[in-house]
Amino acid sequence: MPVPTAETSRIGTVGNMSEQTAALPDSGTPDPAPELVAALRATLDGRWATSRDVVRERIQAHGITPQVGLSLADYRARVLGEMREMVAAGFPAAGFRTDHGGTGDTGGAVTAIETLGYGDLSLMVKAGVQWGLFGGAIENLGTARHHEKYIRGIIDLEVLGCFAMTETGHGSNVQELETTAVYVPETGEFEIHTPTGSARKDYIGGAGQHARYASVFAQLVTAGPGEEPVSRGVHCFVVPIRDESGADLPGVSTSDCGYKGGLPGVDNGRIVFDRVRVPRENLLNRYGDVAPDGTYSSPIESDNRRFFTMLGTLIRGRVTVGAAAGATGRLGLALAVKYALVRRQFDGPDDAGELLLLDYRTHQRRLLIPVARAYAFALAQNELVAELHAIQESEDADPAAVRELEGKAAAIKAGHTRLASDAISAAREACGGAGYLAENRLPLLRGDIDVFTTFEGDNLVLTQLVAKELLTAYADDVRGLSAIGWVRFVAGAARDVALEKTAARQVVQTLRDDSDADPEESELTSRGTQLRLLRNREAHLLRTAAARMRRAGDDDADPLEVFTSAQDHLIKVGEAHIERIVLEAFLDAIDKVGDPAAKELLFAVCDLFVYSAIENDMGWFLMHRQLSVERAKAVRRGVNELCADLRPYAETLVDAFGVPPVALDVPMLDPSNSVAAPPDRG
Amino acid sequence: MPVPTAETSRIGTVGNMSEQTAALPDSGTPDPAPELVAALRATLDGRWATSRDVVRERIQAHGITPQVGLSLADYRARVLGEMREMVAAGFPAAGFRTDHGGTGDTGGAVTAIETLGYGDLSLMVKAGVQWGLFGGAIENLGTARHHEKYIRGIIDLEVLGCFAMTETGHGSNVQELETTAVYVPETGEFEIHTPTGSARKDYIGGAGQHARYASVFAQLVTAGPGEEPVSRGVHCFVVPIRDESGADLPGVSTSDCGYKGGLPGVDNGRIVFDRVRVPRENLLNRYGDVAPDGTYSSPIESDNRRFFTMLGTLIRGRVTVGAAAGATGRLGLALAVKYALVRRQFDGPDDAGELLLLDYRTHQRRLLIPVARAYAFALAQNELVAELHAIQESEDADPAAVRELEGKAAAIKAGHTRLASDAISAAREACGGAGYLAENRLPLLRGDIDVFTTFEGDNLVLTQLVAKELLTAYADDVRGLSAIGWVRFVAGAARDVALEKTAARQVVQTLRDDSDADPEESELTSRGTQLRLLRNREAHLLRTAAARMRRAGDDDADPLEVFTSAQDHLIKVGEAHIERIVLEAFLDAIDKVGDPAAKELLFAVCDLFVYSAIENDMGWFLMHRQLSVERAKAVRRGVNELCADLRPYAETLVDAFGVPPVALDVPMLDPSNSVAAPPDRG
Repeated sequence: MPVPTAETSRIGTVGNMSEQTAALPDSGTPDPAPELVAALRATLDGRWATSRDVVRERIQAHGITPQVGLSLADYRARVLGEMREMVAAGFPAAGFRTDHGGTGDTGGAVTAIETLGYGDLSLMVKAGVQWGLFGGAIENLGTARHHEKYIRGIIDLEVLGCFAMTETGHGSNVQELETTAVYVPETGEFEIHTPTGSARKDYIGGAGQHARYASVFAQLVTAGPGEEPVSRGVHCFVVPIRDESGADLPGVSTSDCGYKGGLPGVDNGRIVFDRVRVPRENLLNRYGDVAPDGTYSSPIESDNRRFFTMLGTLIRGRVTVGAAAGATGRLGLALAVKYALVRRQFDGPDDAGELLLLDYRTHQRRLLIPVARAYAFALAQNELVAELHAIQESEDADPAAVRELEGKAAAIKAGHTRLASDAISAAREACGGAGYLAENRLPLLRGDIDVFTTFEGDNLVLTQLVAKELLTAYADDVRGLSAIGWVRFVAGAARDVALEKTAARQVVQTLRDDSDADPEESELTSRGTQLRLLRNREAHLLRTAAARMRRAGDDDADPLEVFTSAQDHLIKVGEAHIERIVLEAFLDAIDKVGDPAAKELLFAVCDLFVYSAIENDMGWFLMHRQLSVERAKAVRRGVNELCADLRPYAETLVDAFGVPPVALDVPMLDPSNSVAAPPDRG
Repeated sequence: MPVPTAETSRIGTVGNMSEQTAALPDSGTPDPAPELVAALRATLDGRWATSRDVVRERIQAHGITPQVGLSLADYRARVLGEMREMVAAGFPAAGFRTDHGGTGDTGGAVTAIETLGYGDLSLMVKAGVQWGLFGGAIENLGTARHHEKYIRGIIDLEVLGCFAMTETGHGSNVQELETTAVYVPETGEFEIHTPTGSARKDYIGGAGQHARYASVFAQLVTAGPGEEPVSRGVHCFVVPIRDESGADLPGVSTSDCGYKGGLPGVDNGRIVFDRVRVPRENLLNRYGDVAPDGTYSSPIESDNRRFFTMLGTLIRGRVTVGAAAGATGRLGLALAVKYALVRRQFDGPDDAGELLLLDYRTHQRRLLIPVARAYAFALAQNELVAELHAIQESEDADPAAVRELEGKAAAIKAGHTRLASDAISAAREACGGAGYLAENRLPLLRGDIDVFTTFEGDNLVLTQLVAKELLTAYADDVRGLSAIGWVRFVAGAARDVALEKTAARQVVQTLRDDSDADPEESELTSRGTQLRLLRNREAHLLRTAAARMRRAGDDDADPLEVFTSAQDHLIKVGEAHIERIVLEAFLDAIDKVGDPAAKELLFAVCDLFVYSAIENDMGWFLMHRQLSVERAKAVRRGVNELCADLRPYAETLVDAFGVPPVALDVPMLDPSNSVAAPPDRG
């Protein structure tokens, strides 16, 4: 079989079904071919395949699955117990630097936590809070004195902590947190205080029960000798909150958030501080310090830049959350696809007995489109993890690269968690009554995944952040242009300027160079055409958003109205950006695949990702004349045909996720238990 | 203020913001005007307002809300206890005919159960199963002997029952159920039997614990003297399943479905029958009977028509499920809208402190569009309930009217439950971390509502059913046409033939007569234009679906391929039909509103419903040249402007839902508890 190239998939011209069927041979058997599964899985597993396998084995051996019917107390204890066993197995060390007692394998650490998404998200979140967020704050915002004092204990769970950033009235707007940390030079202490009800720390994982320490984000207020006290912006402080017996320390009032939509093994809670004193040394002082006399100092002059630099060091949490959500989304899809391959319903028109659910086009659409998106996002996520790893390994990371990574982390987090949540809801519905039973896990996954769309950055806020970053880059490039120059620029003279920055991949570059033809005259199956459609959409949206934003500077413009009226436009910019970078990462990953059959199948999956993305935004493409009506109809047909082409490979595609068998061991997938073959086929 | 007419709303031409703002005066105060709320509420409450109020008062007085942290056993006991109190208050009588001991107020009964959707869906479902499904089967499929023996006990809960239709391998495909009921003339008994694993009765509400009786749907097999036994299709039998102590009766094996995605107060379970004998008299014999000697008789000759007639009598369940889902969807929207009016986030560009969430356009879009849809569906639901009431009141309902009602019930159920589920998910996300806490109810509502999209008819199956009904009606009208005649017909000679049938409303007729102009030349704000856009979409989809279906009859066509390839087309037909009939019902309801301010506001809500529906399907409208690009852009702008116009009325709109205060009494809506006003506005 010839190796397909990046330019076009071997799937035939859309609209010609016979050619298509020839391109992707019918698998002819319901059993997935092991070699093909292995090749796909190697691609999905990527660089940290070993980390994945270690966690898969742990999930399988320990039966780490969402539990049913446990009390909150028992569930929390179970999860903490599992974490202690992970310590014994050396699990947390990868997340910390070698000079702090870890092994410094960021990519491995993130990938391991991601893989817990095949097990139990309660464990994933609680492990992520302890080792990623709390531990990450100490490691990245603290200095030697903190590393020496805490990191070993954080790794081995002697020091149980929580990450006290969010406040009741302030989730996404961290810069406006109300909690104060006022320096008291007389005693050399900070006074941590909750001034209002809305300043209460809220939804904090670990604060409900287990955490003894909190990394508290608060407005640092201090004065040098003879100065008036002044706020230096948000900083982070280590604050002990409970004693050895678990009782609140003086001045600290914790309470329990109780039952939630899911994640029953995570003890979310609230903390209110009533003028709690901590030593000056408890300030995590890497980016800002207070001398004994109250003098403030920082290596970063600008309060704003310091704040974003500090937040930037915590990027790993956002990367991890997107990754783990993706894993759970894949698990949900695997459950539903496998059910659709055992469950029958309604006779087919040829009287050959009831059809398998997955033989219905509507069922193919609602499961195979998210499967295609899951492939695209999984591979983009892998690329992001590798970039995070590289930056955290380097001694002196380029600030521009850090900033680009932050934008990409926001984009992938928003897109991947949205996909996971939607995919699991679709999977639940696709399994009907069986999908609603806790024993079949889908409702538990649905409850657990739900909050991923709004924590670690609300997806809408993150999507706007992505758009704003793009606009800023755009404006930088045209700074200094005259008004007429700006207008010309906007009119298309340099339409791709902002986009160029993030695309350094060879394969994408080559495709892009080949893709200057009119989309109407080139094949929709051409990678270059597909890439150009998504790039042009993003560039067009960005250009017009920039033009609108520019009006905000006009004298007679009401800034609130300009801002408000552009908000949904910005969301669309962000969403278009997300799909474009995911496609590029997908193409880059496919380019590296050696196995020809796997490559061919991945190209078909990529086609479905692109076609369905375009179909989903068809109104935009038509309204902005990026597609003709005829082309649009071909896209719609193409989605259906790709679903039909991929139908025989559905089990192969989900088997390649490498979900541990225990996660799929549910009653609805046990044919002997419930589902009979039709009489004439039995 | 002049009373607006149906032809155009007084909201100005879309695209001209100043005109719009003039049309809907800014309410100027955050407090909803009580008269406006009352007028809107009267419209929404409709004919059975009294039934609603009785249930509202009960919810308020008894604190009927989703509970947190109860064991399954305690929750079930609580719900059953509440049902016993409802008996004491005379609640169930409305659902039964006067000659059976009820009061025969179908509309009141359905509306009362709907209103439980503002309280606790566990109670709604359990009450619906006992009095609606189980009681309804006995009343509608049984005859005097059953009515006398059971109905009184069903009303007062002496006879606790369940509705054993669904099987593990057969949910939506009732006609292919496997459970058998073989008549044994020697003893004058039926032998009820579960022949395979997939024939197990599954997900049956009440079968897990409380039900003593089941109405069991099974294939009736019997033989007259000297005949071979033959299957007469699905019939319903009363089968005792538990003794007084709650133990399974001999031959009956029940088991418990345990935890589910929600509805913890409903004891869903499974039943397996091992050759269980029941007396011949336990056949509910209204539509088919077996004589002592085994001779089968029925007033309906055709097995197929008998089956659908029997199912048709059970339509009330489907109507009720859509109604209750709608109520819970409104509750979820009320919670999220009210939170968006107390919670602030991020400074506005004018430095006037943090903005309320609902001041953000993205937040307006994600909440106000579902609010508009909730109005539309609530009023369409009311119309459906009134039609059900009329048919159940009439002695001899016209079969065509019954069939039309069934189609409409399927359509509204599918659309209303989809809306409710999506709206609650959007509401949860719109409340961020607070929305994920059980104490704020949204995750409980999300878990409870989820299954409504797939029970009482899977929404995808129902939507196809709607489309098939339309196609059948379409084909009936052209029966007898030659091939050429069919082609001509399809080409547009009588495009609206199938649509005409369901539109008898005066206002809609008038609007339709006025709406023959080219959509491009008439105002988008014109009701006639809006109606025509939705009608033309449906007619176009129906016409093209008919043409595809016709190809299934060609000699060289593969029927499976024709069927499969048309399936997503059929879904689109059904969806387009749903939105069109909902719009017509909405317009009809608005036409009857006397209060001018309420009428004006409702027209704006209707505009948002239509504009957002078109925006959501923009690709189709553009692809099929039903809208020009310029028009399409005006629609998109229009959605945003309507959101801005309705923003000051958001609280008015949700207050008019008449949600009992106890349902809104959640911590996140208590400002003193959690959310501070910004310092400069406090």
